[in-house]
Amino acid sequence: MKVYLDNAATTALNKDVLNKMLPYFTDVFGNASSIHTYGREASSAVNSARETVANIINAKPNEIYFTSGGSESDNWAIKGTFASLKSKGNHIITSVVEHPAVLETLEQLKKEGAQVTYLPVDKGGRISLIDLENAITDKTILITIMSANNEVGTIQPIEEIGAIAKRHNILFHTDAVQAMGTLEIDVVKMNIDMLSMSAHKFHGPKGIGVLYVKNGVRPQRLIAGGHQERKMRAGTTNTPGIIGLAEALKISAQNREENNKKILALRNYFIDRVLSEIPYSYLNGDRENRLVGNANLSFEFIEGESILFNLDLEGIAVSSGSACAAGSLEPSYVLLSLGIKEELAHSSIRFTIGNDNTKEEIDYTIEKLKKTVSFLRTLSPLFKPQGEEHYV
Amino acid sequence: MKVYLDNAATTALNKDVLNKMLPYFTDVFGNASSIHTYGREASSAVNSARETVANIINAKPNEIYFTSGGSESDNWAIKGTFASLKSKGNHIITSVVEHPAVLETLEQLKKEGAQVTYLPVDKGGRISLIDLENAITDKTILITIMSANNEVGTIQPIEEIGAIAKRHNILFHTDAVQAMGTLEIDVVKMNIDMLSMSAHKFHGPKGIGVLYVKNGVRPQRLIAGGHQERKMRAGTTNTPGIIGLAEALKISAQNREENNKKILALRNYFIDRVLSEIPYSYLNGDRENRLVGNANLSFEFIEGESILFNLDLEGIAVSSGSACAAGSLEPSYVLLSLGIKEELAHSSIRFTIGNDNTKEEIDYTIEKLKKTVSFLRTLSPLFKPQGEEHYV
Repeated sequence: MKVYLDNAATTALNKDVLNKMLPYFTDVFGNASSIHTYGREASSAVNSARETVANIINAKPNEIYFTSGGSESDNWAIKGTFASLKSKGNHIITSVVEHPAVLETLEQLKKEGAQVTYLPVDKGGRISLIDLENAITDKTILITIMSANNEVGTIQPIEEIGAIAKRHNILFHTDAVQAMGTLEIDVVKMNIDMLSMSAHKFHGPKGIGVLYVKNGVRPQRLIAGGHQERKMRAGTTNTPGIIGLAEALKISAQNREENNKKILALRNYFIDRVLSEIPYSYLNGDRENRLVGNANLSFEFIEGESILFNLDLEGIAVSSGSACAAGSLEPSYVLLSLGIKEELAHSSIRFTIGNDNTKEEIDYTIEKLKKTVSFLRTLSPLFKPQGEEHYV
Repeated sequence: MKVYLDNAATTALNKDVLNKMLPYFTDVFGNASSIHTYGREASSAVNSARETVANIINAKPNEIYFTSGGSESDNWAIKGTFASLKSKGNHIITSVVEHPAVLETLEQLKKEGAQVTYLPVDKGGRISLIDLENAITDKTILITIMSANNEVGTIQPIEEIGAIAKRHNILFHTDAVQAMGTLEIDVVKMNIDMLSMSAHKFHGPKGIGVLYVKNGVRPQRLIAGGHQERKMRAGTTNTPGIIGLAEALKISAQNREENNKKILALRNYFIDRVLSEIPYSYLNGDRENRLVGNANLSFEFIEGESILFNLDLEGIAVSSGSACAAGSLEPSYVLLSLGIKEELAHSSIRFTIGNDNTKEEIDYTIEKLKKTVSFLRTLSPLFKPQGEEHYV
């Protein structure tokens, strides 16, 4: 059996989405900036996709800018805001659990004079609104807090953050890459000025994303050049990608409630069985404010990577730490930020359930996981199975 | 009849390329950074694509960085070099006929203290190597000159520029977006340090490009975040796009000689017939050092846009000025740089012939073009058909 439980890393492209994209590769292939029929057909399709995306997050079509994905959107929002507003202030507020696309961007800006406050998070992975208010200074130009975390699925209080940002007249950017498709986003109600999304996280294609930018907000262009995207993002319009993004987002919005319900039931069934059937297993993060598909678990005394490889041999795909940090030997900074001990962080596995997973797959995974964990513990010098005291 | 003669704006995706891409959308869909089987299958395909691309330009695989396209590659090469080397010097040399992705990027850098020298071009659109040598100062950190121009197809003396850059120990970047697929590029022989390409210009997919960066050269990341592309370009790997780019480049390299020969014959036939059969028509740019598919022609006394719309009604797709400046009423800065008068620049049309065009299509185009030009001139107050003196 093949079981894909790494839907936070990426998702399979929905076949209906692919079918919708196909004509734009070889037939309606014109450059959307061209003014002849080939170009106008492409730009008309792109405009319609833009409307679709805008409607789903309660934005206006001219507030939707297509990019190459979430990382570009994050870089643009943050660097562009700093470039546009650095004469006004150099202070940016973020959290310790942001995605590397935010944290590494801020590292670059610090070399150019940015001052960054990193809000801590509680055991569940949430920031404190009081901390946020306290961090604001008269030099604060941007608050960038993710909608939901990629590793533990923790959902931040976005609407409340938006209200605080608005009250202080500070721009609010949210990396919604993990949230889109699962959470309902209303940029007006939530007072979001900029929002990043990436299609491949919700069964759309790779290489295409969005930065929503509220009218009146003008981050400097990250990619300068031609007039595309109303002179805000240069580069030939990726028509098939845009069509795919919009279609995937539309499908995910239409089926959101039903999918979330199904995924949540599977996820809770999975967590409950693991915690009750596998000794010394722990759920990382907040059980309430959590994306429905996320189950980040630690299995004491063994390495997450060893579990990952053993499950992989059984056809089960999971992640240890963030997929974006693959190859890294450092324990997850997100788990450490939640106060999880280094040993337990090293023993963590992220299971992320998606639309396509079934109960049979979850049962199979639990069976193989139990076998794997038992086996690896027999090899672990740290594990003493006969009721002896453990080091924790 | 439908005739697509705007291959410099974009090309139709080759159907074989699409077929090669398809499995990576829905089957081998893993995140190439994931370490499970799904991820390893994707990264293995990406590695193989990277080798293909490297071999074609005589680079090493670890010198190939996948981006979202030519504009991103240009922005990254130029901004990244400036960020990395600004303590060494702030002077950049370019030409007046570069693509907006280069010129607009330089505009941004000028606000940050960059000094830019814009080399003029001759009537054919080429820079002078003597001008280039004379422009070099001890503050010069980068020479960025395109391999071939998007509007008039003029090919620059890349190998000679590379030799000058090397002799002065200055980095050399070339925007080869228009050249790839047509010109043979050898980054070693040509002493190129960075080279931008975009797949959709050679029958690959949109939304994917390359920046070749010679080992030892380290432009700061434009898109910061995860570890992708050896920590040089963050963002989830666009596997289908990369597979498509490599396949399209491979096919174009394999068929280069044959295609170029065929396209050149069609293009010369077209130019010769137009110049001899349509009075007051002129070829813009250099006939020798010119991309095989490019025919940029001016039709005195009438507006290029009017010709474009009339041809469009006949099913023929062409461009007036650069497609990237569509919607702009300014005459092409490229044509003006070649010393072409504003009136003639306004009356220009770019025909760009590709692999798929046939002699029948060219004959049809000539017939419709003659009809269109005659008709529009009857409406033009500037045109005096009875042998009277014209204003030029």
